[in-house]
Amino acid sequence: MKKPTVSALHTDKYQITMMYAHWKNGSHLKRRAFDLYFRSLPFGNGYAVFAGLERVIRYLEELRFTEEDIAYLQSLGEGLDPAFFDMLRSFRFNGDVYAVPEGTIVFPEEPILRLEGPIMELQLVETALLNFIGYQTLIATKAARIRHITGKDVLMEFGTRRAQEVDAAVWGARAAYIGGFDATSNTLAGQQFGIPILGTHAHSWVQDFPSELDAFRAYASAFPNQTVLLVDTYDTLRSGLPHAIKVGLELKKQGKTLAGIRLDSGDLAYLSKRARKMLDEAGLTETRIVASNDLDETTILNLKSQGAKIDSWGVGTKLITAFDQPALGAVYKMVARWENGHWEPTLKISSNPSKVTTPGRKSVYRIIDLKTGKASADLITSVDEKIDESKPLTLFHPQHTFRRKKVKNFTAVSLLRPIFSAGKRVYELPSLTEIRSHHQSQLSLFWEEYLRILNPEEYPVDLSDQLWDTKQKLLKSIYDSIRQENGS
Amino acid sequence: MKKPTVSALHTDKYQITMMYAHWKNGSHLKRRAFDLYFRSLPFGNGYAVFAGLERVIRYLEELRFTEEDIAYLQSLGEGLDPAFFDMLRSFRFNGDVYAVPEGTIVFPEEPILRLEGPIMELQLVETALLNFIGYQTLIATKAARIRHITGKDVLMEFGTRRAQEVDAAVWGARAAYIGGFDATSNTLAGQQFGIPILGTHAHSWVQDFPSELDAFRAYASAFPNQTVLLVDTYDTLRSGLPHAIKVGLELKKQGKTLAGIRLDSGDLAYLSKRARKMLDEAGLTETRIVASNDLDETTILNLKSQGAKIDSWGVGTKLITAFDQPALGAVYKMVARWENGHWEPTLKISSNPSKVTTPGRKSVYRIIDLKTGKASADLITSVDEKIDESKPLTLFHPQHTFRRKKVKNFTAVSLLRPIFSAGKRVYELPSLTEIRSHHQSQLSLFWEEYLRILNPEEYPVDLSDQLWDTKQKLLKSIYDSIRQENGS
Repeated sequence: MKKPTVSALHTDKYQITMMYAHWKNGSHLKRRAFDLYFRSLPFGNGYAVFAGLERVIRYLEELRFTEEDIAYLQSLGEGLDPAFFDMLRSFRFNGDVYAVPEGTIVFPEEPILRLEGPIMELQLVETALLNFIGYQTLIATKAARIRHITGKDVLMEFGTRRAQEVDAAVWGARAAYIGGFDATSNTLAGQQFGIPILGTHAHSWVQDFPSELDAFRAYASAFPNQTVLLVDTYDTLRSGLPHAIKVGLELKKQGKTLAGIRLDSGDLAYLSKRARKMLDEAGLTETRIVASNDLDETTILNLKSQGAKIDSWGVGTKLITAFDQPALGAVYKMVARWENGHWEPTLKISSNPSKVTTPGRKSVYRIIDLKTGKASADLITSVDEKIDESKPLTLFHPQHTFRRKKVKNFTAVSLLRPIFSAGKRVYELPSLTEIRSHHQSQLSLFWEEYLRILNPEEYPVDLSDQLWDTKQKLLKSIYDSIRQENGS
Repeated sequence: MKKPTVSALHTDKYQITMMYAHWKNGSHLKRRAFDLYFRSLPFGNGYAVFAGLERVIRYLEELRFTEEDIAYLQSLGEGLDPAFFDMLRSFRFNGDVYAVPEGTIVFPEEPILRLEGPIMELQLVETALLNFIGYQTLIATKAARIRHITGKDVLMEFGTRRAQEVDAAVWGARAAYIGGFDATSNTLAGQQFGIPILGTHAHSWVQDFPSELDAFRAYASAFPNQTVLLVDTYDTLRSGLPHAIKVGLELKKQGKTLAGIRLDSGDLAYLSKRARKMLDEAGLTETRIVASNDLDETTILNLKSQGAKIDSWGVGTKLITAFDQPALGAVYKMVARWENGHWEPTLKISSNPSKVTTPGRKSVYRIIDLKTGKASADLITSVDEKIDESKPLTLFHPQHTFRRKKVKNFTAVSLLRPIFSAGKRVYELPSLTEIRSHHQSQLSLFWEEYLRILNPEEYPVDLSDQLWDTKQKLLKSIYDSIRQENGS
């Protein structure tokens, strides 16, 4: 049997511990429901871009314990019942999964995945699901911010050397592509996902030759149709550009075009303007200017405001590590228990009120105004609620409930799709191209006020009355029972 | 033939492009030397902890292009010479590698790896080496900062769910262990590296039962000898602790001990002091208090200063992502070219003076004062320089060269060890336990002034006179030739 791509041991020890304790207690097959969501938006952005589902699907489909895994767990010498390990041999994921499609715009507090199934299985997968979705959603969101301020410029993901190990480089390249990047330098991501790959030469290429001009000529002779020359090894304006222009003119004589020059240090605003002028004056008007060097949405926005003449941006460290907030902080919480033939909502309390969970199995609807075609709000309901589109709908501001608005002439689009049913995949994986265009069409649903990168408006995400009531009642009953036990 | 653990395509496209251009140019086998180093310390720390070498070694030993890799590169349709792909079929790493051992304390600007070999090979591996070493060194350094302020407390790495994908979780757990952590929650890292794994139960365990007390009893019955109870699902002081104490007393009657309680939210200083008091008053003096919830060296230091009664710390997001600086920014620069039977130094200039590279093949020495046993400075020399320990050595402050000191009665310890010779490994991999103790013995070489986590003294890293002169001469000759070309 093929070894799974991701080991079943890619999890926290406490998941295994709880699996055992449930099995020992006879409760391991009890049916439970969990929501996966995040509590706040990264980077001060107004939305997040959901990504990571393909990785989740493959993981759940392949999930099993190998003999080596079982041997390792036994070797821990915790004195566990040997029958537990026999049970692990036939372990498979048998649950139901609902998720929003990749590329969808999502917001805090709304379930982006819901899982239902035996508690033992839902515990094991928690860690991996948070790990996959947290990272890819973070990077897709960061990429979308950069795309938002670059219009139709070419955006290249260049972060592999600064990524947090191999998987981050590969899956981060994929997430950046979903979020609107055009290409990556990561060859493995090119192979695995068909993302266009780009890259020319480094400073070491230039250092390897007796002179910069020799180096440029040798490179142009190897790649005459796609020559991009890095011009800052010695001196951008006095050495790199004059040499690049010389080679550009030589290519021109052969009927070819110098594709581009790349700036990788110094004052990119000043240098790009000077470079554009020098290239144009030499007749190399088609040669494009590529820039890289610690870029992110803020530096690019500033360079643009200074009139930088840059056609193509290589973004590395700041994107692939989500430098200004390297973790999304997604969570996975039990919301309902199947007991006595029905689902009982459950919640976790916290001394921090924003961390109190919302109980019950939920649906998420995006309310689209049919006149404008724009999204008015998201509405979280119980799975058993129906939205009557023929009647006006009253929406409450999530924090300031006194602010409300009535919407008429709308359609309510359900965001969660069935992905697995009883462990069997029922969802056809879209291609990466389809995911990218889904993301673009999602963006067109939102007013610019929600999409801008600085101080966006807060998009409303409402709880239905029914959910709100369930939550309040459950909170009260738990506090009542604590008070009773404490005799107060 | 076994597929390599890390694909040869885990690299930037431009490395492949340069391999081709070199091959086309007939220069692919020319012998070159590269240094790998970083330019500044992360987190405002006074030192870094080198990690990642084991990953580098396995990667270089296994490095080869599979038929799928070659087919992918051919499918790009760049019109490359087919003979290039035949050459890739027999591609192996044939270079020499020198590196400092893992766990070693290292500083900016000093080569922590030096590679010598055919340019084509040294280009291909650049991206992967920076990716491995940058991440693991970053995490080991962060872990060492946390260890520095926790003394003999138990430190647990709990970050898998917030790590940037699978590899980061696994290799990050290893790096944290090198940097002084005691255990990880990551079961896969436990299996792969033999790191102790720890973990008990989550809030969902408690939610799964009709009452918290039932949940605690069921858990204690599954793990009577290692019961740690999470007490903040509903109300820490009024529900969680009273129930945990009840179960603790029940265990006591069976001659067992409640191993611990875990706090995961709220005011950890206040709650831990109250918890300690309640446990002690109930006679559960051996029950330990475990805390988690967005901890790092700063929050732990503050909790300690408030007299928090915490025995054991679970550190997640802030460690595994190196939250306050998620990239080390290591670089890999060509420093010498083998031409006409000898090594010619080479450098790269930058408009940012601190980015000008230091040319030539180098050694790094740690100068140890024999009277105190402490390190006085690191000295970077040319490989052909010898240090005469019988004569006083004059050291210059790296930035402020007017500040100098003379050391006598010292020993100069060479930091770089041979790892590969002509592609063959000549270094025996130490065990992880040996690496951990090497790290601890390295720490004992440094005065506390360099080790403190806030505003440490800058440890001196000097260039030898010979290296300094080579650099100045080379800079002058490059600028002279630029001036000549520009006729000024």
